[in-house]
Amino acid sequence: MAPGNPEHQLLVEPVARLIDELGRLPGIGPKTASRLAFFLLRADEDQARALAHAIVEVKERVTFCSRCFNITIGDLCSICLDPSRDQGKICVVEVPLDVLAIERTNVYRGLYHVLHGHLNPLEGIYREDLKVDALIARVHSEPIQEIILATNPNTEGEATAFLILKDLAPLGVRITRPARGLPTGGDLEWADPDTLSSALEGRREL
Amino acid sequence: MAPGNPEHQLLVEPVARLIDELGRLPGIGPKTASRLAFFLLRADEDQARALAHAIVEVKERVTFCSRCFNITIGDLCSICLDPSRDQGKICVVEVPLDVLAIERTNVYRGLYHVLHGHLNPLEGIYREDLKVDALIARVHSEPIQEIILATNPNTEGEATAFLILKDLAPLGVRITRPARGLPTGGDLEWADPDTLSSALEGRREL
Repeated sequence: MAPGNPEHQLLVEPVARLIDELGRLPGIGPKTASRLAFFLLRADEDQARALAHAIVEVKERVTFCSRCFNITIGDLCSICLDPSRDQGKICVVEVPLDVLAIERTNVYRGLYHVLHGHLNPLEGIYREDLKVDALIARVHSEPIQEIILATNPNTEGEATAFLILKDLAPLGVRITRPARGLPTGGDLEWADPDTLSSALEGRREL
Repeated sequence: MAPGNPEHQLLVEPVARLIDELGRLPGIGPKTASRLAFFLLRADEDQARALAHAIVEVKERVTFCSRCFNITIGDLCSICLDPSRDQGKICVVEVPLDVLAIERTNVYRGLYHVLHGHLNPLEGIYREDLKVDALIARVHSEPIQEIILATNPNTEGEATAFLILKDLAPLGVRITRPARGLPTGGDLEWADPDTLSSALEGRREL
């Protein structure tokens, strides 16, 4: 913070710093950061402290599962610890939020593996930044029959799935990818050509 | 947080709580709150702690000016402490961010008075929730010649300006309101009828 910046002087230093810190969050621009900072300034003491405390608690208590890299408090996550889950299937996802999205469907009862990102050489994210070797080690040491590559259906997700496919193909497990097609509730008229061609190619008998 | 909620169990409690707290911020819905929580979970320790610390610092160190209710660290804000400001003018605004917006123009060199809100009976915000009495006291005790009512040019802002006008009219100070008209860089074609009629009514000789 430049001491000569009249804006910062007017803002008073702790408010300027809070705006700076909020503005470092993804999707929070300078205007939203200002709005949030002034909201917190006027919010009641308890609400502001609860937020600050929740941030610190997450950093102090939450870690990643040593097997699948989902979020956890202990060594293994609640899914890895659940003996009722199908131990022969691993669903590979990019981030822990994807685990939640799939759990909400209630159709999948296997295990997960969180890569913590996707390939993106432009952003400097390479194979070694993802939990790919740990996945291959699991295929060797666990009774895995199927790997579902549920990385995002976009360029980076496809590249990541292809990378993993190359590594896993020689190991003789079944490798699948979720179907591409029209989203439920969507409008055929507004579907992009890629989605529509996937939907036509993947058409099923009624 | 319901202990039986499987989503919260999957999320692990500190993450669920952080999502709850972030979701209480204005304009942050559940999806954004999740995204921010998982960003903080993966962000480096220093960044997360700096944010938590900035929130606590704002609550501990920043307060409101005892004269104009702008933000300040001490008793009076930097504008009230500046003897070069025109002590005969008060610009009345709704929130401290409005002070910044006006300071950025560099055309106003008087004082401010922050109401901390606008009239909104539907949200339970009445005259006594705003710093109106403090403003009237200032007009009595300070050498004020002009009050600029710079509340927002919307329904609540107009109602607030009208309320203050009623109180100040008997005191014999000049009371003004910023001009309404077409915004610079705007498109006449896209101007709403209210703005356009204000612009026509307020037309000036060239």
